[in-house]
Amino acid sequence: MSLIVQKFGGTSVGDLERIAKAATRVEHAVRDGHSVVVVVSAMSGETDKLVGYVRDIQPDLDPREYDAVVASGEQVTAGLMALTLQKMGIAARSWQGWQVPILTDESHGRARVREARPENLHACLDEGIVPVVTGFQGISESGRITTLGRGGSDLSAVVLAAALGAERCDIFTDVDGVFTCDPRIVAKAHKLDKITYEEMLEMASQGAKVLHTRSVATAMNHRVRLQVLSTFTGAPGTLVVDEDEIVEQQVVSGIAYSRDDAKITMIGLPDDPGIAASLFGPLAAAEINVDMIVQNISPDGETTDLTFTVAEGDLERALAVLEANNDVLQARRVEPDTRVVKLSVIGVGMRSHAGVAGTMFKALASKGINIQLISTSEIKISVLISEDYLELALRALHTAYDLDSAE
Amino acid sequence: MSLIVQKFGGTSVGDLERIAKAATRVEHAVRDGHSVVVVVSAMSGETDKLVGYVRDIQPDLDPREYDAVVASGEQVTAGLMALTLQKMGIAARSWQGWQVPILTDESHGRARVREARPENLHACLDEGIVPVVTGFQGISESGRITTLGRGGSDLSAVVLAAALGAERCDIFTDVDGVFTCDPRIVAKAHKLDKITYEEMLEMASQGAKVLHTRSVATAMNHRVRLQVLSTFTGAPGTLVVDEDEIVEQQVVSGIAYSRDDAKITMIGLPDDPGIAASLFGPLAAAEINVDMIVQNISPDGETTDLTFTVAEGDLERALAVLEANNDVLQARRVEPDTRVVKLSVIGVGMRSHAGVAGTMFKALASKGINIQLISTSEIKISVLISEDYLELALRALHTAYDLDSAE
Repeated sequence: MSLIVQKFGGTSVGDLERIAKAATRVEHAVRDGHSVVVVVSAMSGETDKLVGYVRDIQPDLDPREYDAVVASGEQVTAGLMALTLQKMGIAARSWQGWQVPILTDESHGRARVREARPENLHACLDEGIVPVVTGFQGISESGRITTLGRGGSDLSAVVLAAALGAERCDIFTDVDGVFTCDPRIVAKAHKLDKITYEEMLEMASQGAKVLHTRSVATAMNHRVRLQVLSTFTGAPGTLVVDEDEIVEQQVVSGIAYSRDDAKITMIGLPDDPGIAASLFGPLAAAEINVDMIVQNISPDGETTDLTFTVAEGDLERALAVLEANNDVLQARRVEPDTRVVKLSVIGVGMRSHAGVAGTMFKALASKGINIQLISTSEIKISVLISEDYLELALRALHTAYDLDSAE
Repeated sequence: MSLIVQKFGGTSVGDLERIAKAATRVEHAVRDGHSVVVVVSAMSGETDKLVGYVRDIQPDLDPREYDAVVASGEQVTAGLMALTLQKMGIAARSWQGWQVPILTDESHGRARVREARPENLHACLDEGIVPVVTGFQGISESGRITTLGRGGSDLSAVVLAAALGAERCDIFTDVDGVFTCDPRIVAKAHKLDKITYEEMLEMASQGAKVLHTRSVATAMNHRVRLQVLSTFTGAPGTLVVDEDEIVEQQVVSGIAYSRDDAKITMIGLPDDPGIAASLFGPLAAAEINVDMIVQNISPDGETTDLTFTVAEGDLERALAVLEANNDVLQARRVEPDTRVVKLSVIGVGMRSHAGVAGTMFKALASKGINIQLISTSEIKISVLISEDYLELALRALHTAYDLDSAE
């Protein structure tokens, strides 16, 4: 009898009716002969309400109390899910993170899981009882409740699946799976049956919201087979698996985008060998990540221009750092621009196929779209363009890489 | 430096503004040089919401899950109170029942406290940190969260005050203290400065809502000095203390009433010696408490009538038990009546003063109020009357016992 972990997100447990719907997914798996461990998020809106309380008192107060308050949301859902399963005739009981226990470090608000001890859950399963575990939380060595940060419930599910040696970890959500592109923008986008860990990791880090990078990375490290699927349809979703499980690999699997980048152009920097270090050193010291970078010689031939991107949320701080260091940098002008988007074309097939970048540049050029910055990795090409062209560019690329669905 | 426990009820922590108000009470005590342990209820309405979720799934389901869900309310308030205190410059941290720990039996939903271990809280206080403890809950031997039932947060406060050897346990609420009578009905009612445990116990069990019987009984057993007072005014409240602390004892301290009783009259029972046992045995077996009882010989001289009261919530079940046993009881008729109220005059002075009952009967008779049933204890006289006369009777008794305030 195989063991699977089923995780339900906030919209899947948003009210009692939805919890009942989610419970039927558990019921089907149990009736199919699986051992099931359930992981739940807080009811949608609940975590925001609790975070709102804390922020209304004062932001940036004791993160240990933030965690104690915010972790209560999943406790409610875990109990309600256990009761709902019981009502359907399925023996179930709730487990809070500290009861399992899921042991974490002391980084409250964004704790890292040290270890999930599976013994209690195994004993529970051995009694024929479905454990329903609170996602998003654990307990620190000093006995305080910790939360895992954004995407924390997915991470709880993956960590438990790894610790329990589960056959699969199903992430139930309000979409049908992972799509070739955002279907709200590209109508011809279609659901992928399978995607590799590496691709999913790039998709997540380049803006696809369906899974968080941490969960995918953890699943990849522990070789946990992930499935992303809809609570509401019950249809098979997208499997996130090892590359060797995918027989016919597309060159490009999907196209992600992000509106969260800001571009900074430094004009008229002295063309000295150490200038990049003088620029990026202070930014790194301020914990500001720089993503894409390009350097040009200025038309005057004596100075250089440097363009790079940072997260839009870091822009103000980045400009302050540059201002503070301009006696060294001596830029003539600094031009920030938030009206940009980053498009990323992703696929493990790029490793063995040439011409992927050429297809991208040709498709964008044919629509008159100017590429401002480019960066590449082994399985990804990203470009920065004006946000005005987002929809046009996504649709053009989707067609150019033969991703449009038949219908 | 003396230690006091301060407990804040649901209305005192109903929103962030009220939590801030409650926190100033803690602040004053801290500034006065006290060590303070805070106990909090859930925000008013929150527990009802959580109970509503559980009942909407199905009433009478697994009480362990009920407890896991419902206990989350206090967890939120404890964190928010700790944060609010921190904002005011007072070091504070939240403690959940299981973290203290407050150990209980396994009677979920109405657990009994076995032991509150004070070591962690003492260590916290020694570091100059105010512990804020979730009321209403503890942990069972098997590691599940338990709740203590109605009045549970008061009980948590009293239990902790006893375990910590606190000088006093302040129960902050939305009224100014314990009144001679319900001031919403008797305008001339006044706040008592002091009341004995025994009187408070009778007041609570006879319908006064300000404290629950369990908390008062526990305070009495452990000689915990209780104070009931208002979060909002900051004025001194009512001290619940040993009799020897009260110098000038009134004969009657207060008048309580309850609308929660139902009267049952059994007409035409055979006048056999065993008839009371045949009647009350099955009721006791069904865990239905009988309160007041009176037996009369019927006018025919051969049968007997028996009148008694049960909690109104038990009436339907009581009538079913009587129906099921009527082949033995052979009552000619059973007459239920829910349109009754019980008035109780309470005072330890009764022990040494005669004529207290006479004053009551005279006062009621002078208003033409018929007494249906009477019961007495050492420090209490209760009568059952028609609910139509509730207000009239309370005011008449309040005047008759010289309780009317000067203003």
